[in-house]
Amino acid sequence: MGTCTVGDHLLRRLREIGVGHVFGVPGDYQLEFLDQLEAMDGIEWIGNCNELNAAYAADGYGRLNGIAALVTTFSVGELSALNGVAGAYAESVPVVSIVGTPATFVVEDKQKVHHTAGDGDFRRAARCAEEYTVARAMLTRDNAASEIDRVLCLCWLLKRPVYIMLPSDVAYETIEAPGEPLVLPEPSSDPRKLARFTDQARDLLRSADSMAVLLGPEADRYRLAPQLVRLVEGIGCPVACLSSAKGVFPEDHDQFIGGYAGKLSDSYVRETIENAACLLAVGTQFTDSVTGGFSQNIDPSRLIALHPTAAAVGSVRHDHVSMKDAIQALAGAGIRKPSDITSQFRRCVGAAAPHEPARSARLVQERFWEQFQEFLEPGDVVIADQGTSYFGCAELPLPHGCTFVGQPLWGSIGYTLPALLGCMLAAPERRHILLIGDGSFQLTAQELSTVLRHGLNPVVILINNDGYTVERHILGANAGYNNIATWQYDRLVEAFDPLGLAVTVKATTEGELAAAFETAGGNRDRLVFVEAFMERLDAPESLVQLSRAFSTSDYHHAPVS
Amino acid sequence: MGTCTVGDHLLRRLREIGVGHVFGVPGDYQLEFLDQLEAMDGIEWIGNCNELNAAYAADGYGRLNGIAALVTTFSVGELSALNGVAGAYAESVPVVSIVGTPATFVVEDKQKVHHTAGDGDFRRAARCAEEYTVARAMLTRDNAASEIDRVLCLCWLLKRPVYIMLPSDVAYETIEAPGEPLVLPEPSSDPRKLARFTDQARDLLRSADSMAVLLGPEADRYRLAPQLVRLVEGIGCPVACLSSAKGVFPEDHDQFIGGYAGKLSDSYVRETIENAACLLAVGTQFTDSVTGGFSQNIDPSRLIALHPTAAAVGSVRHDHVSMKDAIQALAGAGIRKPSDITSQFRRCVGAAAPHEPARSARLVQERFWEQFQEFLEPGDVVIADQGTSYFGCAELPLPHGCTFVGQPLWGSIGYTLPALLGCMLAAPERRHILLIGDGSFQLTAQELSTVLRHGLNPVVILINNDGYTVERHILGANAGYNNIATWQYDRLVEAFDPLGLAVTVKATTEGELAAAFETAGGNRDRLVFVEAFMERLDAPESLVQLSRAFSTSDYHHAPVS
Repeated sequence: MGTCTVGDHLLRRLREIGVGHVFGVPGDYQLEFLDQLEAMDGIEWIGNCNELNAAYAADGYGRLNGIAALVTTFSVGELSALNGVAGAYAESVPVVSIVGTPATFVVEDKQKVHHTAGDGDFRRAARCAEEYTVARAMLTRDNAASEIDRVLCLCWLLKRPVYIMLPSDVAYETIEAPGEPLVLPEPSSDPRKLARFTDQARDLLRSADSMAVLLGPEADRYRLAPQLVRLVEGIGCPVACLSSAKGVFPEDHDQFIGGYAGKLSDSYVRETIENAACLLAVGTQFTDSVTGGFSQNIDPSRLIALHPTAAAVGSVRHDHVSMKDAIQALAGAGIRKPSDITSQFRRCVGAAAPHEPARSARLVQERFWEQFQEFLEPGDVVIADQGTSYFGCAELPLPHGCTFVGQPLWGSIGYTLPALLGCMLAAPERRHILLIGDGSFQLTAQELSTVLRHGLNPVVILINNDGYTVERHILGANAGYNNIATWQYDRLVEAFDPLGLAVTVKATTEGELAAAFETAGGNRDRLVFVEAFMERLDAPESLVQLSRAFSTSDYHHAPVS
Repeated sequence: MGTCTVGDHLLRRLREIGVGHVFGVPGDYQLEFLDQLEAMDGIEWIGNCNELNAAYAADGYGRLNGIAALVTTFSVGELSALNGVAGAYAESVPVVSIVGTPATFVVEDKQKVHHTAGDGDFRRAARCAEEYTVARAMLTRDNAASEIDRVLCLCWLLKRPVYIMLPSDVAYETIEAPGEPLVLPEPSSDPRKLARFTDQARDLLRSADSMAVLLGPEADRYRLAPQLVRLVEGIGCPVACLSSAKGVFPEDHDQFIGGYAGKLSDSYVRETIENAACLLAVGTQFTDSVTGGFSQNIDPSRLIALHPTAAAVGSVRHDHVSMKDAIQALAGAGIRKPSDITSQFRRCVGAAAPHEPARSARLVQERFWEQFQEFLEPGDVVIADQGTSYFGCAELPLPHGCTFVGQPLWGSIGYTLPALLGCMLAAPERRHILLIGDGSFQLTAQELSTVLRHGLNPVVILINNDGYTVERHILGANAGYNNIATWQYDRLVEAFDPLGLAVTVKATTEGELAAAFETAGGNRDRLVFVEAFMERLDAPESLVQLSRAFSTSDYHHAPVS
């Protein structure tokens, strides 16, 4: 044990568990904590333009770094950030949300202070946070040491946001704090239940004459890709992924066959997954956006499903079986189900002729993605906003070591631009490419200035297609409400770039896009902003079909009177 | 009764109660409703860049128009807007928040659709909305006609946000809807209680040898300024206001003595209010930001307090006495307490020598506000963000018919830029002037593009003082966390202004500011953007003192161990 302030202890704990950057916006109830943060080595404050952007940035950071932290001020700040925290909750990203609150005696006296409704109720925003966090703590001098450890452990264990209220007068209180570093917990298994699961799974597999593996996002959150590769190589079977787990399994691997999205899948992938006598689903969530609107056709009796803390064989659920232990047990079970596999790379990349840009042809989505495919390099981080960007990217085979970031379940447009900032600070040595539509970009555009403020060098590709193309495909193809304000995006970049660090290029033709990609290749150390113009209703076929499914579900399934 | 769709009925009701513009961002669960909105005459869709901005715009519109409406999509949209709705709740602005939700059968089946956490719980965001709305409805075909009327009436009566969930399949259901227009309720009084209050108040007043009136924000929300002027003129006593009610009482009136903010007040105002033998407080809320940190010194035994549905004489509270009825009863009670009054206009405007700009002198806050004072004209709408802008404006006597918009209780920085949009659409015939700091501006900057998209012509004064000056005065005067990204604001305006509608000017000296104001005067039909440069720590004295009070309260009152 040693003595230190509550604020310092919290910061040290964050640093110990791998948080090197803290996102947020200053506010008068947490300035003391920011003072402590500024004075501490090894952990850096990243001021954002607003709190929603800060939360999105923390989410992006959490995805690449494994855990993230966000600091906002009471009520006005935390509520502005709430949709970002909720997205992290839905998509299982561990974010520590720290809120500076009024001093303890202000709350006890129910003072009519700013950032309240003036009615003495200081818990409104905290009750909102309960909806989107897995643990919460209201720090006091007495409980800080234990409560900080409790919520950080739960954040790590459950891979979802936690909420820490730090009253302004508590931050600098001195406490006795443990000297040894925090040991982070991992999901554990009941050995007997694990053995029972393994036996059952082996029995099902023994009788199956074919097998495939399908990956979902939970496999990524628990960082189990290396174990999965070993398991799958041992078995010799084909592997596909939901788009929400894109890039988790190396896409250049000989056993990787592509993305599975129900009836929107490539027919080879669809048949392989749906016809497998046994399907091992690792961390899958069959949500509408990644299944072509629930069009997956998977026989539950032939399914072995692994989740973070439970597994199932057919209809039999085994609690207290962790995904990690289950993967290890299966890997050790000597299962071999080799089959002839035509990998996605062999089908799509190896077989394809190099993209020859028709130099004067206007950019269209289909050709754009072909061209973008060739721009990709091993190790890239590709971040795609929910819209034509996400669905265009979802179909591209990624080179080795690429990471793909999107938000298909929560689907909050605008998420990716601040997320780019977070991703880059988590992995500055990698090339980052953002793909985002103009409608989405406008929601969070100012965070580009923070990217430039830190001298970061992503490739930002703005797909300028004159409004909300996703929505147009659901309803109101040419309706006024799907229009947006006309911006001059190159000027916007200039506005955010007083030092002239960025390069901006526009592309309306395939030739111009090729030139833009060359510019990006030649300016590795600078932010390159590519504005690619496409038609309003031009969209990847998968998005067109998914939008049709959404439209039907939203508006036409209901009983019409 | 007649038949119409649920969506059309809701839109007609909104139009009947005075909503001419609906703010929001399209999303796939409310496109049907937006289709209905687009097809309806007399009510216009105003698409915003993001949902928080839309909520702020609705708040501004509600303040000038009397009621406002906001449309967002399920979860991602409504949570992004939540801080804006919460601000309207805290500051008593009636906003109808309409959320398009997944279709009824999707919710009943607990489908794992996008914009949820994938766990079948569709009520998380609705539970958050409960914290900041006074009534909520989940529309069905069966309840729509009655529920719409119920919540709209409560919104009007209580002057606070309400929440309407409109499932995507319900919007176009046909219902029987009442043909006659909705009659909006007003707070009413129990005649016996009103009489008892009036007698008591008259008794207190009879024995008082002096009297003053102090106005708070609730007087504005119930639109009681004309009745107040009559009452005060009948009595003949001095009137002051909290800054949260600035402009409600005509500031050029002979009986208006200025703003009261506890010990931060002008000494004449402070003495008049604090020494009055009887103080009539109309709709006051003594919150920290408008009282110099609770420094008001008002003897409760000498206080007559009117609130929307209750009144008090000394310590005796009278429920079921509406503010409107109480004002009318007091006006009819023949009370006369005339006194010698030195009005604020006589003290500050009439007496002051005209501002002679020292042309090459660098702009400083003190001189800036003198110069700005002379720029003001009768009928202006002045919107000031919480910071040097608000506290600088709070001290200026407003010409006749001016309106002042700020957010001193909720205090969410960035609020005013989108609020400007809402204010302008509510009263396009008036000149609107926004004052905002650079830190605040960055939070919601993109909404300037919506102002330009609609060809609006405000004067926007950006106080560029290199970061969060308010926070610097509380803690971290030169700390890194109070810095912001450097933007080229003139380029930003260009980026949002493809048609070249705006004029941008910069002012670092008094002479340049004078020229900027001349430019604004000569370009009434255009948006004029003035970037006024001031020093980091330069701030109105009232803000410096208030920040000191906040700093003490937040960080130094706590027991130090």
